[in-house]
Amino acid sequence: MGGGPQPVRARDAVLDKRWKEAVLGIQLSRRYCTQLLQRSIHSKNSRHPQVVNNLVESNITEKERKHSCKGCVHTSTKKVIQSSGYKMAPGTTAEKKSEDERSSAKACGVHLSNPHLDMMKEDILYHFDLGTGTHDFPALFGDVKFVCVGGSASRMKFFTQYIAEELKLGDPKADIPNICAGTDRYAMYKVGPVLSVSHGMGIPSIAIMLHELIKLLYHARCSNVTVIRIGTSGGIGLDIGSVVVTSQSVDASFRPQFEQIILGKTVVRSTELDEELAQELLQSSNEINEFNTVIGKTMCTMDFYEGQARLDGAFCFYTEEEKMQYLKEAYDAGIRNIEMESSVFAAMCKLAGLRAAVVCVTLVNRLKGDQITSPHEVLVEYQQRPQKLISHFIKKHL
Amino acid sequence: MGGGPQPVRARDAVLDKRWKEAVLGIQLSRRYCTQLLQRSIHSKNSRHPQVVNNLVESNITEKERKHSCKGCVHTSTKKVIQSSGYKMAPGTTAEKKSEDERSSAKACGVHLSNPHLDMMKEDILYHFDLGTGTHDFPALFGDVKFVCVGGSASRMKFFTQYIAEELKLGDPKADIPNICAGTDRYAMYKVGPVLSVSHGMGIPSIAIMLHELIKLLYHARCSNVTVIRIGTSGGIGLDIGSVVVTSQSVDASFRPQFEQIILGKTVVRSTELDEELAQELLQSSNEINEFNTVIGKTMCTMDFYEGQARLDGAFCFYTEEEKMQYLKEAYDAGIRNIEMESSVFAAMCKLAGLRAAVVCVTLVNRLKGDQITSPHEVLVEYQQRPQKLISHFIKKHL
Repeated sequence: MGGGPQPVRARDAVLDKRWKEAVLGIQLSRRYCTQLLQRSIHSKNSRHPQVVNNLVESNITEKERKHSCKGCVHTSTKKVIQSSGYKMAPGTTAEKKSEDERSSAKACGVHLSNPHLDMMKEDILYHFDLGTGTHDFPALFGDVKFVCVGGSASRMKFFTQYIAEELKLGDPKADIPNICAGTDRYAMYKVGPVLSVSHGMGIPSIAIMLHELIKLLYHARCSNVTVIRIGTSGGIGLDIGSVVVTSQSVDASFRPQFEQIILGKTVVRSTELDEELAQELLQSSNEINEFNTVIGKTMCTMDFYEGQARLDGAFCFYTEEEKMQYLKEAYDAGIRNIEMESSVFAAMCKLAGLRAAVVCVTLVNRLKGDQITSPHEVLVEYQQRPQKLISHFIKKHL
Repeated sequence: MGGGPQPVRARDAVLDKRWKEAVLGIQLSRRYCTQLLQRSIHSKNSRHPQVVNNLVESNITEKERKHSCKGCVHTSTKKVIQSSGYKMAPGTTAEKKSEDERSSAKACGVHLSNPHLDMMKEDILYHFDLGTGTHDFPALFGDVKFVCVGGSASRMKFFTQYIAEELKLGDPKADIPNICAGTDRYAMYKVGPVLSVSHGMGIPSIAIMLHELIKLLYHARCSNVTVIRIGTSGGIGLDIGSVVVTSQSVDASFRPQFEQIILGKTVVRSTELDEELAQELLQSSNEINEFNTVIGKTMCTMDFYEGQARLDGAFCFYTEEEKMQYLKEAYDAGIRNIEMESSVFAAMCKLAGLRAAVVCVTLVNRLKGDQITSPHEVLVEYQQRPQKLISHFIKKHL
């Protein structure tokens, strides 16, 4: 997956002010955009993984293989656009777009695999309430190096305030504006090179967010971005409050893959995560030395109750013995926690060429029970553990 | 599915005050609970559908068939509990619980299919931040007759204020408290017999909410509850702003079923909705006569971009022709809109014996484009259409 995150200079006060203006919907001038771009875009360490390899071989079609990376195989991509008859924006030719892209793809490190986007005059990221026609993405997001995502909007706001304090970026007591204030689908916050985004619960909810996040990073021409999901989970055979760094995300049948239906057909994608990054995160936890952290497989399910073999949902058609047998088999397969987003997160980050990790705290030991019964203040402290770990990791890389 | 919703008396000021106290976490006295219970629980029109029929025959096991309805087959249920060795609350016997339940199941009309719940001393609805040990469910929710659910928390708050005004329940300008204020996973509001709950985006997110909602209604001993999802969707071959009342929810392969993985095995459930209710809702729309409403099939997908054949996601490995062919096939199969929650909503409401409907406005005609480009104020007006329709329908039944 290429090199690790690169050191980033903290933005100075002028840029901070400009950024705030931009968040408030005021467009930046070209001059300031250029300044920002010069600082953040043209990295010498651009990574250019062969995204083709991210697709599980047995399920990839020849066409998918050919245009799975815009930067790599643009000639075949262009051919698809032309054959599709998709209308181009006035004054734009596929040839010209193609050249622009080739140069930007080399620098950006974020890989879109969609030839149709280049033909659009404007890209509206509907669920973020942001658009390329109304917002200057390079100015707003061009310096992003770390994206942290989590289910809860309030937790991501708390994390942003925490990281602002830890990284000494601005006044930690100042209110940090929600960049997606125009919608309540997701919340997004930014301090320095760290973008925090909420994703709701479950695979479809995080998938929508990731489609728009990946496009956002691409339009902003970001480079060398690391994406980390910080969340909560049910543990298997671990003390409550332990943190699990995911080695591999598996489905409810313990397979390391993500299945989805596209045009009525099943497509299977790899859920491989960055091994080196997982080891770096474990090392960060060892340095903090405040809580137990392990590397293990994470099972990603479509449901919290029946899908995770709980006995306390509205419906349950199995016995406690059957539940325990399933969870013990999961433990024996190396699974240490269960959550609901990691598989599509791993699959999409891999397709986009983004270095990615999943770091979740366990709020219950499923071998001992189903309900989350710890007192509120204890749960709050547990939820801060992945945040502490990631904060320590980011500090090391700035 | 039994008779329609029954007329409900508006709660008087005293009960309103008591309810507000309860929302604020103050426990009601037994005397007031009894008053509320007398008013709301003992309906003469209890419905008792054979929930067994809700499971798709080819996929149901003999054991599932036996204890799919607590009220109906309690003897086999009890046997399962005993054989499972699940611990019972102190001072409770399976026999005693069983009798209590038989009588309450006759009156409640909400069917849980989980023998394990009765053995729990307390049921914590974690994602609602509510629990039977801390909240008096019959007092809080016993009078609920209509539950309206939708993706966005702010839209559900707006809907509650709107319905309060339409039904003349309290001061429409007064702030209505969020019953789930202790969490940001879901938001819940209540005016009179109408409960409004947000569910986020996608099948897993609404499934968690429905598990806890069904348990809430059961613990509150509600009867004759109608559940309606009001949402937004992409239309197929309809003018933007049209409203679709779902006749049948189908998956991305156009099959009228919901598949999920339980203990590593695929279980298939029926997504049938209440035909009579759909016709009543169409009639309500005709009476309003302000916008186009049709009854049609709704396709429920796991993703907004690739899963709905959009060309504007971060990834797209198909041509516009292939997209159009898929959408035209969907249209020919009777599908008129696409969203992301209806299949599990239909399946779970059916299992719980709840009369259910899905009413969604279309924000785009997918045969003409992918992006939602209508101006903000137009989208706001469109989103109010299902709310207007449901408000008219509820008014007719009060």
